[in-house]
Amino acid sequence: MPVVTFLSDFGLRDEFVGICHAVIVQICPDAQVIHLSHGIEPQAIDQGALALAAAIRYTPPGVHLAVVDPGVGSERRALVLESGDGRRFVGPDNGLLLPATDACGGVARAVEITSERYMLTPVSRTFHGRDVFSPVAGHLAAGVDPAALGPQVDPAGLVRRLRPGHTLTGSLLAATVLEVDRFGNIRLSVTPGDLGELFQPGRTVEVDPGTGSRYYALCARTFADVDPGEFVVFEDASGFVSVAVNRGDAAKLIDVEHGRRVQIEFAPSFAWA
Amino acid sequence: MPVVTFLSDFGLRDEFVGICHAVIVQICPDAQVIHLSHGIEPQAIDQGALALAAAIRYTPPGVHLAVVDPGVGSERRALVLESGDGRRFVGPDNGLLLPATDACGGVARAVEITSERYMLTPVSRTFHGRDVFSPVAGHLAAGVDPAALGPQVDPAGLVRRLRPGHTLTGSLLAATVLEVDRFGNIRLSVTPGDLGELFQPGRTVEVDPGTGSRYYALCARTFADVDPGEFVVFEDASGFVSVAVNRGDAAKLIDVEHGRRVQIEFAPSFAWA
Amino acid sequence: MPVVTFLSDFGLRDEFVGICHAVIVQICPDAQVIHLSHGIEPQAIDQGALALAAAIRYTPPGVHLAVVDPGVGSERRALVLESGDGRRFVGPDNGLLLPATDACGGVARAVEITSERYMLTPVSRTFHGRDVFSPVAGHLAAGVDPAALGPQVDPAGLVRRLRPGHTLTGSLLAATVLEVDRFGNIRLSVTPGDLGELFQPGRTVEVDPGTGSRYYALCARTFADVDPGEFVVFEDASGFVSVAVNRGDAAKLIDVEHGRRVQIEFAPSFAWA
Repeated sequence: MPVVTFLSDFGLRDEFVGICHAVIVQICPDAQVIHLSHGIEPQAIDQGALALAAAIRYTPPGVHLAVVDPGVGSERRALVLESGDGRRFVGPDNGLLLPATDACGGVARAVEITSERYMLTPVSRTFHGRDVFSPVAGHLAAGVDPAALGPQVDPAGLVRRLRPGHTLTGSLLAATVLEVDRFGNIRLSVTPGDLGELFQPGRTVEVDPGTGSRYYALCARTFADVDPGEFVVFEDASGFVSVAVNRGDAAKLIDVEHGRRVQIEFAPSFAWA
Repeated sequence: MPVVTFLSDFGLRDEFVGICHAVIVQICPDAQVIHLSHGIEPQAIDQGALALAAAIRYTPPGVHLAVVDPGVGSERRALVLESGDGRRFVGPDNGLLLPATDACGGVARAVEITSERYMLTPVSRTFHGRDVFSPVAGHLAAGVDPAALGPQVDPAGLVRRLRPGHTLTGSLLAATVLEVDRFGNIRLSVTPGDLGELFQPGRTVEVDPGTGSRYYALCARTFADVDPGEFVVFEDASGFVSVAVNRGDAAKLIDVEHGRRVQIEFAPSFAWA
Repeated sequence: MPVVTFLSDFGLRDEFVGICHAVIVQICPDAQVIHLSHGIEPQAIDQGALALAAAIRYTPPGVHLAVVDPGVGSERRALVLESGDGRRFVGPDNGLLLPATDACGGVARAVEITSERYMLTPVSRTFHGRDVFSPVAGHLAAGVDPAALGPQVDPAGLVRRLRPGHTLTGSLLAATVLEVDRFGNIRLSVTPGDLGELFQPGRTVEVDPGTGSRYYALCARTFADVDPGEFVVFEDASGFVSVAVNRGDAAKLIDVEHGRRVQIEFAPSFAWA
């Protein structure tokens, strides 16, 4: 059974996801659709790109449909990207697909979807998920060659988004909140590797979320290394530096959300631990 | 693999949807269950009917289970409706199924579900989704003839709900908000066809949501036709007149929700555009 | 197609559920994954255990994956429990699995998962759902014997949680809110059987949610037995005593939530009915 993974910002309140799923199955009846996430914030391309990149190496190779598409109805292109390892990514040309494609051997082939033969016509101006991307995903799963969908395009010309970075000034890190997950864990735009020897399990650090309050945390391997209710700075399951509270919700406690700039002082002048 | 689509107001917080899915698969192991939406507001029959009707033509023909059932445990009937094109709709007799059935060739046959042989017994008084509708959907998917489920009933006697309409007084439209989707797009109870020449892309119109404020909008083909943050009145992907904000949340901005009456003046005496 | 049911507190906002689903399918391509619920409150073991126990008898026998795991990264064990009727439950040793296993003939065999051969390595310290439990569920679905996963352990030594009980003082019941569902129905930690002759349909009772207000309710067979907007005390679809409002949201009206202690006087000195 060919696998189609599907990620979007459609949410699960409306019937959008169900319609797209149905369109895929109507074209490729034996497709196995795996819903990676539809909880991406509306139009949050970076969040969608991050989630897709985090998930992709756990999925069976197949067709990977992703729709976070604030530019629908404008001139932005619709794409199929074939990665170095043979996966096919389907979605808008807005940077959503590239971090995941990069993680799968880069873009081996890029095709702009132009052939109406593989769309539902007339194509609506606001729901290309239904009329363009899902039918193309279905046709790819059913064996259609990407070359049939439209002209090949230069991978160098694809829209690419800058990921937020970090700055390190002595022992002071400034990084951006990439994501707050359901448990309130705060993922920062930095990896332990970026921090070198500063990131040492056992060290007490000081977290400044820019709200006027500061919090001591233990740099550790996991939140179970501190007592319930205490803060921890650790490498999360996707390899990023994260701030959490053992058995608690760190984001609620320190009142930060996606996009906020957070500072961590790795050598505080005073610490209780 | 027989397809069973499933729509409900059960939400995804509790285990209700999972139980129903399991019941279907236990009866028909090769059923392919497509979840159309479970985000219908609790007991919102009209919203469920609208979502089902919007989705149905994108689904493969099969069994179409829908449960929004405020009357569970009362004398309301449980139904299987066979549409003109051979689909089987399963759900309560409260108007939920008819708009979708109408879109599929009308009711060719209506059967009241009475045979306990195809239910899970003892049937609970509050969860017919689990004990009546899901098992029946499973049995239909497995090939049971609707005639086995109970007596045929007169389609003319089915409960039918009036859909909210619109009024047009000169160039002043009054319509009801049928739905606000996740993106804040506001769907009105009117189609461009109902408006004839009033609905002209390029025209500036005035939206009065009844909150004391008024908003100018561009009548256009899609929200990408206006600048980010600007209002647009357009035909949405399901054929209704909708109000949106490009890259924004119109419903939040103008503070309307499902059920509200909204006026649009198509020939405002003054406009900036 | 082997069935894998999956319940967690991961929510559907992040990509966690999608990743786990993908891991299972990558190991066992013909697995049919049924999502029972991912809306369990974060780290709410008791709520997860209750939902799994309520759902299990409606699912086809198979592999039953459940992850509500506040102790991930600590020394808590990872388990496969084989029930008397041959199902395999996979999850943490924190009491989550036992009520469901008890409902399926008890624990016939308990195995601690220790073999890295059936995990994704290196195993992260915070996402055993992805790296331990999902791959094990996939391997079990693909036919691996539980004995291959690690040493057998004594079922008597498994972590077991006490379920909240009730007290009955004359005709005064005190019970705990086990769950508030999407419809606002309030499930209490007591069954009609526990109440004997006190629980008589037709009787008016007085509900004291401990908020300073009291509410009269009809003891009845279902909420359709009272007028819209009126309170009812009834046996819910899982066999518990519940408080509801016909066509309304009881939990919102009387302002209670999960964990609250509620009193019901079955012989009020005064009643309107």
